[in-house]
Amino acid sequence: MRERIEKQMDFLREIDKLKSIGRQNYLADGVRKENDAEHSWHLAMCALVLQEYMPEPVDVARTVELVLIHDLVEIWAGDAYAYDAQAQAAQHEKEVQAAEKLFGMLPEDQREYFKRLWEEFEACESGEARFARVMDNCQPLLLNDASGGKSWREHGIAKEQVYKRNERVRNWAPEVWEYMDSLIQKHVELGNLSVKQDSDA
Amino acid sequence: MRERIEKQMDFLREIDKLKSIGRQNYLADGVRKENDAEHSWHLAMCALVLQEYMPEPVDVARTVELVLIHDLVEIWAGDAYAYDAQAQAAQHEKEVQAAEKLFGMLPEDQREYFKRLWEEFEACESGEARFARVMDNCQPLLLNDASGGKSWREHGIAKEQVYKRNERVRNWAPEVWEYMDSLIQKHVELGNLSVKQDSDA
Repeated sequence: MRERIEKQMDFLREIDKLKSIGRQNYLADGVRKENDAEHSWHLAMCALVLQEYMPEPVDVARTVELVLIHDLVEIWAGDAYAYDAQAQAAQHEKEVQAAEKLFGMLPEDQREYFKRLWEEFEACESGEARFARVMDNCQPLLLNDASGGKSWREHGIAKEQVYKRNERVRNWAPEVWEYMDSLIQKHVELGNLSVKQDSDA
Repeated sequence: MRERIEKQMDFLREIDKLKSIGRQNYLADGVRKENDAEHSWHLAMCALVLQEYMPEPVDVARTVELVLIHDLVEIWAGDAYAYDAQAQAAQHEKEVQAAEKLFGMLPEDQREYFKRLWEEFEACESGEARFARVMDNCQPLLLNDASGGKSWREHGIAKEQVYKRNERVRNWAPEVWEYMDSLIQKHVELGNLSVKQDSDA
């Protein structure tokens, strides 16, 4: 028993590192960038508040579990910026190994449980995983909007990139998409998102 | 419909401020102090991992909701340090008003839902609220341990204060308490927690 609780507590201390994994987007006030732990908490809150917009039935409690753990592998695999295609490609293999190591700290039953949760998020084949992805697209957009598109401007992001990254929301949660789309259009008008010329489209 | 989703999104942008509400304890690495959003995420993870130690039956999903929202009122009421008795006394009234304002941003059904969640945490009369409180006691102790008792030393905290603050865990989750007690004793031996003389006990 003592060995079991020691493993669990060691895991809970280890995952504290998620608070030091930086993201590219700023907080709403634009003062500093967000970290993965803050982002995960915020997604869980989004899931509690926005559940009514999933047209398919979803288990909100499971969605919350998915978003709470979805970035944990970045403790050992690092973060790949959503708009850096090369980094994204190498990322998955690193994350699979990180999941083995990180969840491997837990007693076997919990190791399997958390690994399955993470695999479910990655595979994106359940309604809950789709809901989690909708939140994972919507929340950064809310913060990019609130912070005046600061991160988009810094990285010279084009409208087309944002549409491509977020396009799945259109089918999965049309009302959330409608709201998100209005924010994107607003920031195109404000010049915070560029518009590609025909030649590079 | 548009008005409803606007309210929900405004609420989700407003609660971003939880990421800027500082706590007294340091992260495990001791580099900086934790904020309320990180703490809330960490408590939710603790609830998922440590649920087996509650002797009474608890709904883990509801416990996760309780810990996700338990500190939101601090956005408008500020944080009171756990070992500052005077600040603690004035805190509750400020938090009740903050809950009215903050959850009042949501559509009425959600406003009531979240207010009841917060009141359940505050009243501490359900198994889920007790489980949430156990996590809320255990997690800072894990971080204080990992960071070498830095926050305790800075505030000159005595062992007796830590026992008093955490004593409810002994009855509510004895195995978690046993683990926590071993950490407290370790830090008394290390001199990171002082021991009161008889005259001030």
